[in-house]
Amino acid sequence: MSVGQELKLLPCELSGATSIVTDRPIRDLGENRLIARFRALASASLGPGVIVGPGDDAAVLSADGDRLLLLACDMMVEGVHFRRHWATPRQIGWKAMAQNVSDIAAMGGSPFAAVASIAAPGDFPEAAAIDIADGLVAAASRYGASIVGGDLVGSTGPLVVDVAITGWVPRDHLLLRRGAAPGDAVLVTGSLGAAGAGLAVLEHGLKEPDSSLLADVLRAHHEPQPRLNEAWAIAVTGLASAMMDLSDGLADDLPRLCAESGVGARIHADAIPIAPACSWVARRLNLSDLAFALSGGEDYELLLTCPQQAVPQLQRAVLDATGAALTPIGEITAGEGITLVDAEGRQRPLGHGFEHFGDT
Amino acid sequence: MSVGQELKLLPCELSGATSIVTDRPIRDLGENRLIARFRALASASLGPGVIVGPGDDAAVLSADGDRLLLLACDMMVEGVHFRRHWATPRQIGWKAMAQNVSDIAAMGGSPFAAVASIAAPGDFPEAAAIDIADGLVAAASRYGASIVGGDLVGSTGPLVVDVAITGWVPRDHLLLRRGAAPGDAVLVTGSLGAAGAGLAVLEHGLKEPDSSLLADVLRAHHEPQPRLNEAWAIAVTGLASAMMDLSDGLADDLPRLCAESGVGARIHADAIPIAPACSWVARRLNLSDLAFALSGGEDYELLLTCPQQAVPQLQRAVLDATGAALTPIGEITAGEGITLVDAEGRQRPLGHGFEHFGDT
Repeated sequence: MSVGQELKLLPCELSGATSIVTDRPIRDLGENRLIARFRALASASLGPGVIVGPGDDAAVLSADGDRLLLLACDMMVEGVHFRRHWATPRQIGWKAMAQNVSDIAAMGGSPFAAVASIAAPGDFPEAAAIDIADGLVAAASRYGASIVGGDLVGSTGPLVVDVAITGWVPRDHLLLRRGAAPGDAVLVTGSLGAAGAGLAVLEHGLKEPDSSLLADVLRAHHEPQPRLNEAWAIAVTGLASAMMDLSDGLADDLPRLCAESGVGARIHADAIPIAPACSWVARRLNLSDLAFALSGGEDYELLLTCPQQAVPQLQRAVLDATGAALTPIGEITAGEGITLVDAEGRQRPLGHGFEHFGDT
Repeated sequence: MSVGQELKLLPCELSGATSIVTDRPIRDLGENRLIARFRALASASLGPGVIVGPGDDAAVLSADGDRLLLLACDMMVEGVHFRRHWATPRQIGWKAMAQNVSDIAAMGGSPFAAVASIAAPGDFPEAAAIDIADGLVAAASRYGASIVGGDLVGSTGPLVVDVAITGWVPRDHLLLRRGAAPGDAVLVTGSLGAAGAGLAVLEHGLKEPDSSLLADVLRAHHEPQPRLNEAWAIAVTGLASAMMDLSDGLADDLPRLCAESGVGARIHADAIPIAPACSWVARRLNLSDLAFALSGGEDYELLLTCPQQAVPQLQRAVLDATGAALTPIGEITAGEGITLVDAEGRQRPLGHGFEHFGDT
């Protein structure tokens, strides 16, 4: 959707940026510019105990003992990340918590305690407010997090749900975006594109009663299931070199992993596991299922890298522990470029030339 | 201001509430009703490691070693907690962080890592967004917190700034709202009413150039200074029986401390230390300075209790460590009532009959 920009604070390493500040409205700014400024500012506050600051799925903080503390947050704004007439209040609450759980999972960690703040219009119905809380609690309980506090504030504007979450990760299970090395395999869990296809179904008003595939993509969009067990299965092997969750889509997220690791990547389009329900929707809408898989976002699958020789062992570990597939889709390269190779061997840069279905 | 309700999730002990949910808009609901529902829901998610759930200034979580982990959040919404033409963006950022720091201080803890989410209208100027971040960072740095992540999201509605903060507290320094016992003295740090008077100055458009007292109350309103050093000085003595910060004003906050502790209180109106600048503003506006001190809110002073015989030692400890005054204003009583005794010995219930200057 066109309303919003969502800018994640990025790593402190990019501090020292010296962008000139203007009075331009933030919607006109390139993301990178404002991110660089925020990064530089945040880095000025980093004190002892911060092992990884802004820029990964969660910050990594020192604690006592062998565990590290993780901290992440994700804000959802009506009209940007969801629409109230598309999603139930319970789904809004579920998704707000689930995407935070996914951030902890992506580090190899376990969700611990979360706080949830809601700004709601004064005319928001009591029942809907409670349903949001119910969704937050359902997702927290499902993934082992405790909701230990929060705010509910009346507002003149759109519904805002912001969750911050802590987690624990054993020091030797921690997986960062940095760490991918040239030659490593690039893998994803499960399949991609269903959540983006679900959004497209809503945007196009596609209706097909009794279609289980339609229900699949809508559920993928509204009720994401973070890959917590899969992440643990991966982390305990010690075989992965880098990991993150796919919140914005492969075309946006792989460049982030590569930038953090200082590497490039080559992805094979026909190796990408596309959700069958996504392909079905794409055919109905005369759209490209590959575009959904690359840029639809919100699949909350895991994107990871590992040495080539470790691929079979890692696949077996995830399959045995969770039943989920782990699919190699390409390899890490030296340098900075990220290339998509199609079935005919044609190459094009990834991250350009694909329809963006928005930040939702 | 009338726009908003701010409802803090309260302790899990009040779980099992069985309010009937309606479609009434949340602005028409009594706070207690919705709080009880949210409490009951959140309590369903509480897992191992949660020592104190929703309801205190911060949640208390078990960690490794002798320290406990604290987690709190506070959301600020434009039109409810601030107005953009009254406060500078930097002040908005400062205050959003400072009130979170105050929550950690109120537990006897030290701020550690924070995350900050901002929802801003698309026409919000870049420079203002950066000034908010600058204010967040300034307050974080001032009080030893690190900003380790965040979100910036474009929105169609009012500016929203939400901060979540972690902190550490040595197990034997922890101070909760529960713990006050009949006979205990009730004390406050510093003086009350300045922040509320500052808001009144803005609401009434009071202008008096070159007045340092006017500047004092405006600074108190816009740039609160959490009592972190004072809180530490109190916590290390081990003498206080309960503590919280004064965010909503004595008339709202003391009943919360008493409810958590299962006690009542008697407060002596003429013992309450009212900020001189507050009294000056109240005279100018023909308003009651006592009302500002009781209900103005946002002073972020500490409210605490201790055995009567410990008062001099506690006062000396805070004075020596910080130069701040610690003033006895009444005593804890058995039962539930909270009474205000005026200079003539007349008694009236506290929490009723005082002008509320809003949730800001």
